[in-house]
Amino acid sequence: MPINAPAATMKALRKMRPARGAQLESVPVPSPGPSAVLVRVRAASICGTALPIYDWDPWSAARLRPPLTCGPACCGHGAAGGSAVSSVAPGDFVSAEMHLNCGVCRPCRMGQPHVCQRLKIIGIDLDGCFAEFVLIPETNVWKVDPSIPEHYAAILDPLGNAVHTVLSGPIAGHTVLITGAGPIGLMAIAVSRACGASTIFVTEVNPHRRALASRMGADLPLDPADPGVLAQVLEATGGAGADVLLEMSGNPFAIRQGFSMLRPGGRASLLGIPSQPVELNLVDSIIFKGATVLGIYGRRMYETWVQMTELLKARRLPLEPLFHERFPLEDFEQAFALLHAGQAGKVLFYPGGVPR
Amino acid sequence: MPINAPAATMKALRKMRPARGAQLESVPVPSPGPSAVLVRVRAASICGTALPIYDWDPWSAARLRPPLTCGPACCGHGAAGGSAVSSVAPGDFVSAEMHLNCGVCRPCRMGQPHVCQRLKIIGIDLDGCFAEFVLIPETNVWKVDPSIPEHYAAILDPLGNAVHTVLSGPIAGHTVLITGAGPIGLMAIAVSRACGASTIFVTEVNPHRRALASRMGADLPLDPADPGVLAQVLEATGGAGADVLLEMSGNPFAIRQGFSMLRPGGRASLLGIPSQPVELNLVDSIIFKGATVLGIYGRRMYETWVQMTELLKARRLPLEPLFHERFPLEDFEQAFALLHAGQAGKVLFYPGGVPR
Amino acid sequence: MPINAPAATMKALRKMRPARGAQLESVPVPSPGPSAVLVRVRAASICGTALPIYDWDPWSAARLRPPLTCGPACCGHGAAGGSAVSSVAPGDFVSAEMHLNCGVCRPCRMGQPHVCQRLKIIGIDLDGCFAEFVLIPETNVWKVDPSIPEHYAAILDPLGNAVHTVLSGPIAGHTVLITGAGPIGLMAIAVSRACGASTIFVTEVNPHRRALASRMGADLPLDPADPGVLAQVLEATGGAGADVLLEMSGNPFAIRQGFSMLRPGGRASLLGIPSQPVELNLVDSIIFKGATVLGIYGRRMYETWVQMTELLKARRLPLEPLFHERFPLEDFEQAFALLHAGQAGKVLFYPGGVPR
Amino acid sequence: MPINAPAATMKALRKMRPARGAQLESVPVPSPGPSAVLVRVRAASICGTALPIYDWDPWSAARLRPPLTCGPACCGHGAAGGSAVSSVAPGDFVSAEMHLNCGVCRPCRMGQPHVCQRLKIIGIDLDGCFAEFVLIPETNVWKVDPSIPEHYAAILDPLGNAVHTVLSGPIAGHTVLITGAGPIGLMAIAVSRACGASTIFVTEVNPHRRALASRMGADLPLDPADPGVLAQVLEATGGAGADVLLEMSGNPFAIRQGFSMLRPGGRASLLGIPSQPVELNLVDSIIFKGATVLGIYGRRMYETWVQMTELLKARRLPLEPLFHERFPLEDFEQAFALLHAGQAGKVLFYPGGVPR
Repeated sequence: MPINAPAATMKALRKMRPARGAQLESVPVPSPGPSAVLVRVRAASICGTALPIYDWDPWSAARLRPPLTCGPACCGHGAAGGSAVSSVAPGDFVSAEMHLNCGVCRPCRMGQPHVCQRLKIIGIDLDGCFAEFVLIPETNVWKVDPSIPEHYAAILDPLGNAVHTVLSGPIAGHTVLITGAGPIGLMAIAVSRACGASTIFVTEVNPHRRALASRMGADLPLDPADPGVLAQVLEATGGAGADVLLEMSGNPFAIRQGFSMLRPGGRASLLGIPSQPVELNLVDSIIFKGATVLGIYGRRMYETWVQMTELLKARRLPLEPLFHERFPLEDFEQAFALLHAGQAGKVLFYPGGVPR
Repeated sequence: MPINAPAATMKALRKMRPARGAQLESVPVPSPGPSAVLVRVRAASICGTALPIYDWDPWSAARLRPPLTCGPACCGHGAAGGSAVSSVAPGDFVSAEMHLNCGVCRPCRMGQPHVCQRLKIIGIDLDGCFAEFVLIPETNVWKVDPSIPEHYAAILDPLGNAVHTVLSGPIAGHTVLITGAGPIGLMAIAVSRACGASTIFVTEVNPHRRALASRMGADLPLDPADPGVLAQVLEATGGAGADVLLEMSGNPFAIRQGFSMLRPGGRASLLGIPSQPVELNLVDSIIFKGATVLGIYGRRMYETWVQMTELLKARRLPLEPLFHERFPLEDFEQAFALLHAGQAGKVLFYPGGVPR
Repeated sequence: MPINAPAATMKALRKMRPARGAQLESVPVPSPGPSAVLVRVRAASICGTALPIYDWDPWSAARLRPPLTCGPACCGHGAAGGSAVSSVAPGDFVSAEMHLNCGVCRPCRMGQPHVCQRLKIIGIDLDGCFAEFVLIPETNVWKVDPSIPEHYAAILDPLGNAVHTVLSGPIAGHTVLITGAGPIGLMAIAVSRACGASTIFVTEVNPHRRALASRMGADLPLDPADPGVLAQVLEATGGAGADVLLEMSGNPFAIRQGFSMLRPGGRASLLGIPSQPVELNLVDSIIFKGATVLGIYGRRMYETWVQMTELLKARRLPLEPLFHERFPLEDFEQAFALLHAGQAGKVLFYPGGVPR
Repeated sequence: MPINAPAATMKALRKMRPARGAQLESVPVPSPGPSAVLVRVRAASICGTALPIYDWDPWSAARLRPPLTCGPACCGHGAAGGSAVSSVAPGDFVSAEMHLNCGVCRPCRMGQPHVCQRLKIIGIDLDGCFAEFVLIPETNVWKVDPSIPEHYAAILDPLGNAVHTVLSGPIAGHTVLITGAGPIGLMAIAVSRACGASTIFVTEVNPHRRALASRMGADLPLDPADPGVLAQVLEATGGAGADVLLEMSGNPFAIRQGFSMLRPGGRASLLGIPSQPVELNLVDSIIFKGATVLGIYGRRMYETWVQMTELLKARRLPLEPLFHERFPLEDFEQAFALLHAGQAGKVLFYPGGVPR
């Protein structure tokens, strides 16, 4: 890929200090090393980690080293590349796996690069994509099929979380309980339906999100505070409980309630991130149940990307209800305010201008 | 379950001699032993084995011991049961797994009763269901969800072949090539779609069946005699070949062509039954490809039945284009003539009379 | 199998009241129903559940309905059988899977009878084997290879727990951490070694049991109270942690410590039964680690029995250090006193007299 | 890794013409690119492909482009490296995965780099290791644990074939039939034993190799020409057949005989390379048996290397009977003559001189 410096400086939304907030800066366009690709960002999405980083929660304070350009997920076009780059050409429509693995640790060598012991994350440990350009190692560039719309391509990273969670075990012909209908939980409904899940139960405290869950294809959106929830799930499953639990809330109550509704021999895939240790009755929840419990992190590199691409190309994932407002980078305060209000689906930034 | 003799004699379509044909006989209604259920047959389907048995091909001549009532698949209602029967009640709407396993051989003990070393098959080794009543061991009775229509319930046995084949490996987000669009191949299209397959290729010599394949949801129905078939599949899969091969034809040419279109690392599930040994380039087809090849026989007992039930309950399997004419048992010659003509989908017998 | 009443009455160690203790009684020899086998008990073993039942802990009080003959595991010989029994003959050397499954619930139909929703256990819900005779359903009788010694045949049920735990995931070429070196933990060492585990770490508070762990083949027996334990395991695994965690203690501290030593992408199989809910950092222990956590209950029916038999026939499981004293049924108080002292391995009862 | 040119020229055994034979040449020491490591070869092994290349069989003629340095497997020490190399240091004891994958094709992206669509092989498509130095991409360098002896480290590539084959499915507590006791078949015996296989059957025409098979741990070495072979295997497996078939011969008769001895529901892993298409009764061998057939190629990258390392570190693989004579590179004609005689185990070259 020929080196082709596209510009000298660019706009970037950056965390300049270890404190709440962020600011729009003008910074030099980075220059790709031999194996890196410079991507001109078309659309970037605000995901689960973006808000705590903006708010500077304890996890962010412990992990991040400002100054740093934020931004965990995007799509764009190849702009320039290092001398060793051979699989990406200028102008290619691309997205990127933002988790960078080392390649030689035990998990990497065992085919589990998504839990690399030396994982680095673009947007957390390296400059991210809330900017006009972002650097991506060639291995992590994902060429997007041209049939996939831009706004879908901008959310492949979080959609990949959902696909990884749903497809971490059998799903076809299985009943599914999804605890938590945030954006990834909602995506998981669509993925589950597309992959042959039968009855889809969802528990969610927020009535607005329960309504969204229905629109996404949930059969039985439930209020976890309703004391009849367990009885409803048991009745609808012939007394057995759900075959599959997809935990998307990180909430201790939801986790315990979810396990209580999992059938003996069932599978629980845990993606939601509790902020505290969780007290769990291991005997009833897991041991005597003979349950399979899977921790889910990131995306399988790159099985998840293949599966996701195929499902999108075949138009099996109708995600339109998920999308929310689109902003230029300049309006970032408005975008984060919207997210704080807690009602938003996927909010997108367009560093080069919002398409009309 | 109380013993409750429903009648003294019944009509049955029976193979009386080791020769072509069959005849309608009046025979005593069988009496269930302690662990058996007598089922009043509502609808029975003519499957793959029924025609060769009628025609008395070499396989039938070697295996069957007339006189024998034919009939490999049906639905009906519990009519009477032995003293030890506890899970089925009179009037229950039921179908049945017609393969009977011994429970103690090595495959049975290893969780693979579908390949029991002492397998017996109702309709082949024991009296079948082309009759007003059929005896089924309690373990093999499958209670059908009342939301499932009768004509679907009558074909669960062959539908189970399709579900077993499709779900014998990963399918979601995978491209699929189905070689042969007979009834089970056509069902496999619907099952693949319902379970998240992306592009579905089908090869089939018969143009009428290719059209049916399209109606069932195939993306690319192909004529295997067309010299451009391989190129088309490679182009549509970015040069890789199909992720999954579902072999439904039993035809040596189709098998070899199917393997040539399977991608390295792919999965081939073989259900079609070649009548002769097949010459295969094992190196290119399997070894250097690192392929996974699975022999498929019967249905997983009873994972397949659970999966199939869930898919049907959730209305994910639109199989209407498959169904063909319905006959009383008396018109069996007409039914078999229809099948000989080679255009029929699933033909059903209604021993108690065809519903209007 | 011909019915052949072997005697009128027999000795049995029975729980007569909902209180601590048990007493030796003379009771009628039970008569097998059509599908049951009467087994003349040769040797019976005192397993994990026998002591709490003797002591009448809260779990026992909630579950058992005295009067009841105790006894969770044994070997013996076929003595008589019901009319429908065909796979067992008088005199056959047998053991038994003591968990009885219903066959028709969802887990049973999904190939997971070990977590049947209506599971009944001989020795807990039905009369057990601390007696001269015990009734076993034919399906649950396991014919023991004559090359397997009696004292091994008497402990197949708990050995099956160990085999099920070890073989619930990949083990060959994997490093293993076993938390807790009680009898099943010790067996798991032998099974892990036989099945290709590389370095075997064991944590155990009791120095006597740590010494036994070494004799069974542990490479690194560790005191969990030693603050350097984590560092030792990390150093011996190149900083990664153990590939596999086999939790055999039920102790919350051991569970948390065990997860801290599990490598990202590793597998944890949980058999030990905590008496309380356990507080667990799900994020670090499971989610970000992408761990696979498996609840283990009973034995796979009957894959575990096949695997165990093969390993024993091939003399790959040297378990001699595990065996302890042998008693006639009459000396039960002495046997239970020995177990209370906490040093015993497997203690066996010989209802027909201890062999010299 | 600092670039550190170790010498100007080196000895290399090279294929100079498209014809039988090879010759010792003096060639420039290659210079590593940014991501490559120059390895000083300590010991190199002659594997399956080396002989046909020397003899220039039709496959070699179609694939190789002389001049080319031969040599498919070795160990050595890091000598120099490109600017981007970070995980290997000069002097590190290393071996190498000689199959180079592209990283972006569908199999690579699906976690199956061993069947990469653009696979290149060192020693076949690129200069190999029958030389004083060989170039290896950093990703493909495998650091060898110092506890592993040099002669073992020199055969990791073919040993990896054996480990990959054995561990491509369950093996613990399984009976195994290995067809063909060439070097990889013999290694597979040791690996099977180490990983918990129970009875190990081996068929092999050569009595010398059958004797070697016994020394490696085979329980029942069989002459495939003996008409009683099938009966012996059936008798030793209770009539079922072997649980696992490891095909190591590439011989059509052995393949068919192997499948005839595989139990229903068993697994067949095919590594041997037939020189012609093979006629196979798919119905009896695979379909009605519900068999799982796996094509085996190369080594899992890099799960196989991890498993192999762990087994060797734990001293579970006693392979001494396999090793044969050691030669300096100059005596290559003697070495190939030995192999042509068909009795040799693993023959090693020591380009820097044979250790005494």
